[in-house]
Amino acid sequence: RYGYFGRDIPEVVRLMFCKVSGCLTEGRIFLSLSGEEMVSINTRDTMGIRMLQEEEVEVVLLTSIEDPVAQALADKLAKRTGCKVLQVGMEPMDALNPMVEQRKLNWKDVAYMGTDKPDVKCLNLAGLSAVPGDAPVVAINAAKYTCHSIGGKGAMREFAEHILLQKQKAKSQISQDRIDRSSF
Amino acid sequence: RYGYFGRDIPEVVRLMFCKVSGCLTEGRIFLSLSGEEMVSINTRDTMGIRMLQEEEVEVVLLTSIEDPVAQALADKLAKRTGCKVLQVGMEPMDALNPMVEQRKLNWKDVAYMGTDKPDVKCLNLAGLSAVPGDAPVVAINAAKYTCHSIGGKGAMREFAEHILLQKQKAKSQISQDRIDRSSF
Amino acid sequence: RYGYFGRDIPEVVRLMFCKVSGCLTEGRIFLSLSGEEMVSINTRDTMGIRMLQEEEVEVVLLTSIEDPVAQALADKLAKRTGCKVLQVGMEPMDALNPMVEQRKLNWKDVAYMGTDKPDVKCLNLAGLSAVPGDAPVVAINAAKYTCHSIGGKGAMREFAEHILLQKQKAKSQISQDRIDRSSF
Amino acid sequence: RYGYFGRDIPEVVRLMFCKVSGCLTEGRIFLSLSGEEMVSINTRDTMGIRMLQEEEVEVVLLTSIEDPVAQALADKLAKRTGCKVLQVGMEPMDALNPMVEQRKLNWKDVAYMGTDKPDVKCLNLAGLSAVPGDAPVVAINAAKYTCHSIGGKGAMREFAEHILLQKQKAKSQISQDRIDRSSF
Repeated sequence: RYGYFGRDIPEVVRLMFCKVSGCLTEGRIFLSLSGEEMVSINTRDTMGIRMLQEEEVEVVLLTSIEDPVAQALADKLAKRTGCKVLQVGMEPMDALNPMVEQRKLNWKDVAYMGTDKPDVKCLNLAGLSAVPGDAPVVAINAAKYTCHSIGGKGAMREFAEHILLQKQKAKSQISQDRIDRSSF
Repeated sequence: RYGYFGRDIPEVVRLMFCKVSGCLTEGRIFLSLSGEEMVSINTRDTMGIRMLQEEEVEVVLLTSIEDPVAQALADKLAKRTGCKVLQVGMEPMDALNPMVEQRKLNWKDVAYMGTDKPDVKCLNLAGLSAVPGDAPVVAINAAKYTCHSIGGKGAMREFAEHILLQKQKAKSQISQDRIDRSSF
Repeated sequence: RYGYFGRDIPEVVRLMFCKVSGCLTEGRIFLSLSGEEMVSINTRDTMGIRMLQEEEVEVVLLTSIEDPVAQALADKLAKRTGCKVLQVGMEPMDALNPMVEQRKLNWKDVAYMGTDKPDVKCLNLAGLSAVPGDAPVVAINAAKYTCHSIGGKGAMREFAEHILLQKQKAKSQISQDRIDRSSF
Repeated sequence: RYGYFGRDIPEVVRLMFCKVSGCLTEGRIFLSLSGEEMVSINTRDTMGIRMLQEEEVEVVLLTSIEDPVAQALADKLAKRTGCKVLQVGMEPMDALNPMVEQRKLNWKDVAYMGTDKPDVKCLNLAGLSAVPGDAPVVAINAAKYTCHSIGGKGAMREFAEHILLQKQKAKSQISQDRIDRSSF
């Protein structure tokens, strides 16, 4: 780690993907007799998104075809959180790779939050990845970080604070490195 | 078990019955001033149903006359999960027996998930049976498996994974048996 | 207790009062932008009411003026559970005393379930009384039984089973007494 | 504390500020397909507000611009609880200082309940301050009291009882002081 040559540049997340269903919501869908559908989100989580955006992390929300959060809700979420909303298929990787490349980023610079089997590939590949505390085992095993909070009740916020802490650590290491180098 | 003759053929579930109220929902009904009724289901559970269907288990959802999930909701659930929905009375067995026979199955090949007193007979009879973790004692005592998750929050998913694990075990035992027999 | 004369006749509950808000519901009211109000009840609890009714316990639901469950909801609840719904003031006792007397019962024959300060008098007076597990201390101290379940999530069911168990014990003691007397 | 001169006058809360989102509600917002928004409050908490009002504590509810509880809901809450509702910005202090001064009070006489980063200044300054049990660490560190209950499920009630207990203690100390002085 503190070798002479080839010191690692600490990774700094610049782009975050977050599944809406199960991460930002509880994964619950309320169905009514009259055909109404409802989901719930938490102000603590939207505050977490805002905290990331203030530190210049772009947050992209993912809905899936399987996802009952229909376009109307996604639009609302996009407006409320100021995030882009993207619909992905059973393999989110296919839709996300172009976005990562377009921003000239590496998956190491990406944070990913998912909840279930379809997210496994992305959870494995992303530099930082997390699942809510109530995720199925298959997703927990693929994620780098398991939140104590559950989906729709602070998991996104917890991961946001985790990311910001990593960023802070990385920054302080970079400045420490500069001091080390100049005093060398 | 490993006797010379009459080795048991491991059971493989082919048909699953699942009560909607209390298993797929929390058992909660939201009532509004304007006469609206609402229930909530979880994407984790609908994913569980899909996982069973992919392994060729037919899933049939049961509503009861006592069940507030009215026909409109049942239709919605059927559409979303691709399951047949059946209305059963205080004794579900009466409506289910014909279905089991029609498919030329035995109750040993059936999985049943229920929550309360009316489900006791079916829970006892089915080859695999489960109740959500928050079920009343009378139902827990009759079920072969008690989920750690509660109704509407992953119980169905947990039971689905339990069933698939049993199927996998059964399959690997069958192929092991073939090897044993051929190397005999 | 087993004295020669004046053997106690075990109490058998014949009438039950249950506050809607906080016992049958969680005490939560959902308020919407468009002015809609919503509460949630649980099928497990309505099953508990039915179990009591089958054992000939009359169940009366209480809403209070402070109670946001408006008349429309109360009517719905009455229809669904087959219970009478009564609106009571800050001191429920005033409205309930006439009902108890009219049925020629004593408060010893009454079960009461409440949640907060206004229920203290009735909780003290009723032969059997209970509060949900999440009730404030002032109500817990007055109740004879504190449910493990919380309001709107099985507390009513738990109390119903508690009452039926007491009834069963009382009945078996009465028949034991008859045997004792005849074999005397 | 029991010095001869300058005995402290125990503080008695006369004004309470309470954030609606996350304190009186869970911080959850229900979003529906048709554009409906919903939040939930708890009768236990509104009872807590009433208990404070009976002891002559003025309760003011705070919504923020970030707060999805729109004006319609705020009006409803105001009507139901009899509280004034005030919209505050990212720094609530700016809007609250004039109110405190207008009532000729000191921040020592004020109780404040908040949930997140924007509340930190007020939580630090208020004589009594609290956060719900599920608040982020940044808010917990600033508050004088952390509720065991979580937002929208009794946190406000718990804090109300905490305030009333402090008031009672203060009153009994004042009367004790009078006795001490007169018997001096």
